[in-house]
Amino acid sequence: MPVPTIDFWYDFASTYSYVAAMRITALAAGAGVNVRWRPFLLGPIFQAQGLTTSPFVTYPVKGSYMVRDMERLCAEIGIGFRMPSAFPQNSLAAARMALVGLEEGWGEDFSRAVYRAEFADGLAISEPSVIAAILRKLERPVEAAMTRAQSDAIKSRLREQTADAQGHKIFGAPSFTTADGELFWGNDRLEQAIAWAKRRD
Amino acid sequence: MPVPTIDFWYDFASTYSYVAAMRITALAAGAGVNVRWRPFLLGPIFQAQGLTTSPFVTYPVKGSYMVRDMERLCAEIGIGFRMPSAFPQNSLAAARMALVGLEEGWGEDFSRAVYRAEFADGLAISEPSVIAAILRKLERPVEAAMTRAQSDAIKSRLREQTADAQGHKIFGAPSFTTADGELFWGNDRLEQAIAWAKRRD
Repeated sequence: MPVPTIDFWYDFASTYSYVAAMRITALAAGAGVNVRWRPFLLGPIFQAQGLTTSPFVTYPVKGSYMVRDMERLCAEIGIGFRMPSAFPQNSLAAARMALVGLEEGWGEDFSRAVYRAEFADGLAISEPSVIAAILRKLERPVEAAMTRAQSDAIKSRLREQTADAQGHKIFGAPSFTTADGELFWGNDRLEQAIAWAKRRD
Repeated sequence: MPVPTIDFWYDFASTYSYVAAMRITALAAGAGVNVRWRPFLLGPIFQAQGLTTSPFVTYPVKGSYMVRDMERLCAEIGIGFRMPSAFPQNSLAAARMALVGLEEGWGEDFSRAVYRAEFADGLAISEPSVIAAILRKLERPVEAAMTRAQSDAIKSRLREQTADAQGHKIFGAPSFTTADGELFWGNDRLEQAIAWAKRRD
């Protein structure tokens, strides 16, 4: 029997994806569920819905609430939280690098480190120096990884990944999908997605 | 010491408010927290944000997801779910009647019955006959209640209630507020809101 699996869809610009990224590994392991990390870009998906930026910017009263909600959630689970000065951030370079890392076995650590830099330390993840510092901490060769992240193969993999997200009817992040085609949206649905995969796979 | 209290803000057009309405009484009682039921209208609040209808209609891919999410949630807690043929429904008459009922002591039962009619039986709650049938089941004098619901006093109370929701920075339903000014949005935050009120009041 195959191990139950969920796909974890995340965009590095997404605040609630940070919370999910910090929670998912322990929760899934505890349930015996495997996780496939799938970075993608929300930008093209928002655009297809007629949104030109994050709904938290389009609807400021919702944006203010989100910050307070994040403060409470992060305090509850004991992780840092600081809104970066620019929001939403351009997550393209980080997403490409995450794909490199996921192929080479260090993508999950890299993804968590990007989220911490962005939402615990308030850094700009679109800055190459921020990504480089993370790579150094993970003891990866910075230049080789940077070159690979700019390759046509990685660029088109990210486009495919985003198209695949759209094919799953994903409209926000984080999202979780199961082998039997269920979509769960939001950090609040992480437990339910894991339980579903466990029951059905 | 005062009993810890949360305000429960709901719009009868809101699917997730149905789930919260069915859960809140037992959860709050179990925690020793008092609940004030506060019907209001989301319409003017959406308009102030530049939305002309429910976000679930403006963003259809989100609307389809919401229906599936509601199916799963309602199955999980064992309550019926059927989308009414028209969505969102005009909730004005039901909200005014709920205010009458809350003043007379039957507002919570009325509110749950409206939600069941709408989202378990798929009925049109803007139809006076649907409201009348609920009143009869609750053994309330239909004509007297209908007359009171149309009074200037009730009409202006609903306007005040909606303005009050806006003053609390409420932008969606259900929402919960605590005496110390915290706002929690969504059925998913019900437990957290109750725990917060208990800790702080």
